[in-house]
Amino acid sequence: MTNESITAAKGFWAAGLACGIKVSGKPDVALLVCPTGATAAAVFTTNKIVSAAVEVAREHAKSSKVYAVAVNSGCANACTGKKGLANARRMCAVAAKALKVAPEQVLVASTGIIGEQLPIEKATAGIAKAAGQLSDSAEAGAAFTQAIMTTDTRPKCAVRRLDISGQTVTIAGTVKGAGMIGPNMATTLLFLTTDVAVSKPLLAAALKSAIGDSLNKLTVDGHQSTNDTAILLASGLAGSRPITSRCPRFRKFAKALADLCTDLVRQMALDAEGATRMFKVVVRGAATTADAARAARAVADYPLIKCAVHGGDPNWGRIICAVGSCGVRLDRAKLSCKLDDLYVFKNGAPARFDAQKASEIVSQVEHTITIDLGTGSKTDFCYGCDLSAEYVSINADYHT
Amino acid sequence: MTNESITAAKGFWAAGLACGIKVSGKPDVALLVCPTGATAAAVFTTNKIVSAAVEVAREHAKSSKVYAVAVNSGCANACTGKKGLANARRMCAVAAKALKVAPEQVLVASTGIIGEQLPIEKATAGIAKAAGQLSDSAEAGAAFTQAIMTTDTRPKCAVRRLDISGQTVTIAGTVKGAGMIGPNMATTLLFLTTDVAVSKPLLAAALKSAIGDSLNKLTVDGHQSTNDTAILLASGLAGSRPITSRCPRFRKFAKALADLCTDLVRQMALDAEGATRMFKVVVRGAATTADAARAARAVADYPLIKCAVHGGDPNWGRIICAVGSCGVRLDRAKLSCKLDDLYVFKNGAPARFDAQKASEIVSQVEHTITIDLGTGSKTDFCYGCDLSAEYVSINADYHT
Repeated sequence: MTNESITAAKGFWAAGLACGIKVSGKPDVALLVCPTGATAAAVFTTNKIVSAAVEVAREHAKSSKVYAVAVNSGCANACTGKKGLANARRMCAVAAKALKVAPEQVLVASTGIIGEQLPIEKATAGIAKAAGQLSDSAEAGAAFTQAIMTTDTRPKCAVRRLDISGQTVTIAGTVKGAGMIGPNMATTLLFLTTDVAVSKPLLAAALKSAIGDSLNKLTVDGHQSTNDTAILLASGLAGSRPITSRCPRFRKFAKALADLCTDLVRQMALDAEGATRMFKVVVRGAATTADAARAARAVADYPLIKCAVHGGDPNWGRIICAVGSCGVRLDRAKLSCKLDDLYVFKNGAPARFDAQKASEIVSQVEHTITIDLGTGSKTDFCYGCDLSAEYVSINADYHT
Repeated sequence: MTNESITAAKGFWAAGLACGIKVSGKPDVALLVCPTGATAAAVFTTNKIVSAAVEVAREHAKSSKVYAVAVNSGCANACTGKKGLANARRMCAVAAKALKVAPEQVLVASTGIIGEQLPIEKATAGIAKAAGQLSDSAEAGAAFTQAIMTTDTRPKCAVRRLDISGQTVTIAGTVKGAGMIGPNMATTLLFLTTDVAVSKPLLAAALKSAIGDSLNKLTVDGHQSTNDTAILLASGLAGSRPITSRCPRFRKFAKALADLCTDLVRQMALDAEGATRMFKVVVRGAATTADAARAARAVADYPLIKCAVHGGDPNWGRIICAVGSCGVRLDRAKLSCKLDDLYVFKNGAPARFDAQKASEIVSQVEHTITIDLGTGSKTDFCYGCDLSAEYVSINADYHT
């Protein structure tokens, strides 16, 4: 069977296991390794308060070769001061020692509860143990994915294979998401591997662009976490000629990477905390792209719309209300709104539509809300998901 | 027994009854009348899409004398085009005819579902009937309040009595709220009466100021509705000498009005859709008031914090995360957070605190979250409420 996990790209090994950070006893430490050394690109949260892991990973991502990423779930190691920072460095050091590389060549990522100190002895014992279980099997890749999950209800992976210079190049990704997700960027932790050979600046450019139209377009609850991290490692082992310019091969790779990231974003939206369905908001006819982005996000973030989608209710009044309230320029006489291809509001007035059909559209696993502001030609979009009672019960429980 | 309703101020009559707009058969039409004519001040939603009622009321509020406000619940009369506008005008005309005044001397307000046409024959029959039931009794005031409610679970009224120039002046208010509430302004419909004698510009100034620190500081779900309306009518019948300048008497009146509005806002927050408790977010040490306001609102609007409050969970990590993510200037080394008087985060690091006590604080009907950004001396605040599964079930149901 084809490997559809994070180890699908040539040159990557992984492991994941339980080391006791999570009270539940579920897997909570993971290791991703490129034994030959990988070119790395990374994007981090823009929250002004970042986890110790983000501080350290930002620094280490500058290394010309990265050999590993050590990850823990169950504790965010954020708002943990100097002790937290020392712990994040120890995670790198322990992995580096096991792999006989320098600590700066190991990245680190954490996810879980903010403000608690990491049980560092458990974490480092877990990393050392994981280093002894590394494999490039699909099972090892799956174990990695299991160990990065928090309130995720299912593993989220995607793989793309494409031909570059007559060689099959593979891109693989896995993500954990669920809550505390708001542009930019919509993830907690995203790990991507590829065996393409590509220069560090171009790898960074491809990652930034892929995230811009995928992870940066999803909102679950409107806020970035302190820990958001996306890491892309390229082993260069596919055998394809190195990409060193923005040539057609680069564009092909970048397009496949973006496609894979969008796939992962859809998986995240549908597995957001309590979510049962997702929707895409497309705003057209805006005076500026910023207006389009703002209106799209206002609709995707609005609890009343999220509740209506949850109930399969084509409540376009709440959409128009959110658009009118969010501060963007609009032409009242031209303002229009469609649910998929069905007009519910056209040129400033309610459209006659089949209520049953509208309800069916909103009740789908995914539908598209298209809004025309009637003030220009700019466009942007955003992904959102419904708001359920389940979201509340997940997030109102003390220490889950 | 003292009249604690909207008819408590001298010179106001009211009525409320069911005319069949609401499928439930609950009261849905209300009339507030000042037979001698009142000086009026009004504040409306800043949503770019406004209801027909708001369009008409904006126009009529300019009249030097206002004799009545006709209100319906169960239908917002928003996004209803020319027909909706004609219907709003008819509501005024029918009330004006019954009271033998000009239509421009009648204000109108609507609340309910957006995008549906008002059953105008029912509404006008209801208004005519209400005109025949007018009374200055507490019962009539209570009937008015009942008839403006939508998803409110209880009537919300407040009265203040104060001495001005040796005369007792009364201010009375009633509000309906519940959902689609976000600064500015946090209400759907607010009606205030007073028997003080005051000039129109000063009445407007007092209303604007009172709302600025009360209704404009509450967020339930972050968006203004298309219908938000606050109307203050002054009959001048208390016998006090007219207020025509910003004298101590004006300041005394304005202070009492602001106090009454804050009282109503607390009632609204605690009766917000699904809410079980409220909280105040105070942001200090900000570089600008705008930064303080932005951070306060980011915290009050953040679903994860609202869920934590619902669960009585002192989850300060989510507070710090929201503050870091909202784009305001902050000094990481000075950033602090208190729950009531208990420090949970101090000078950029977690504080040691009694978890049981913290949980008790957050489990109160109301608590205060104080955040110090450590970058200046500006301050602002915001009121919020918890997010419950009940909010979702209220808003995910089709046509309630």
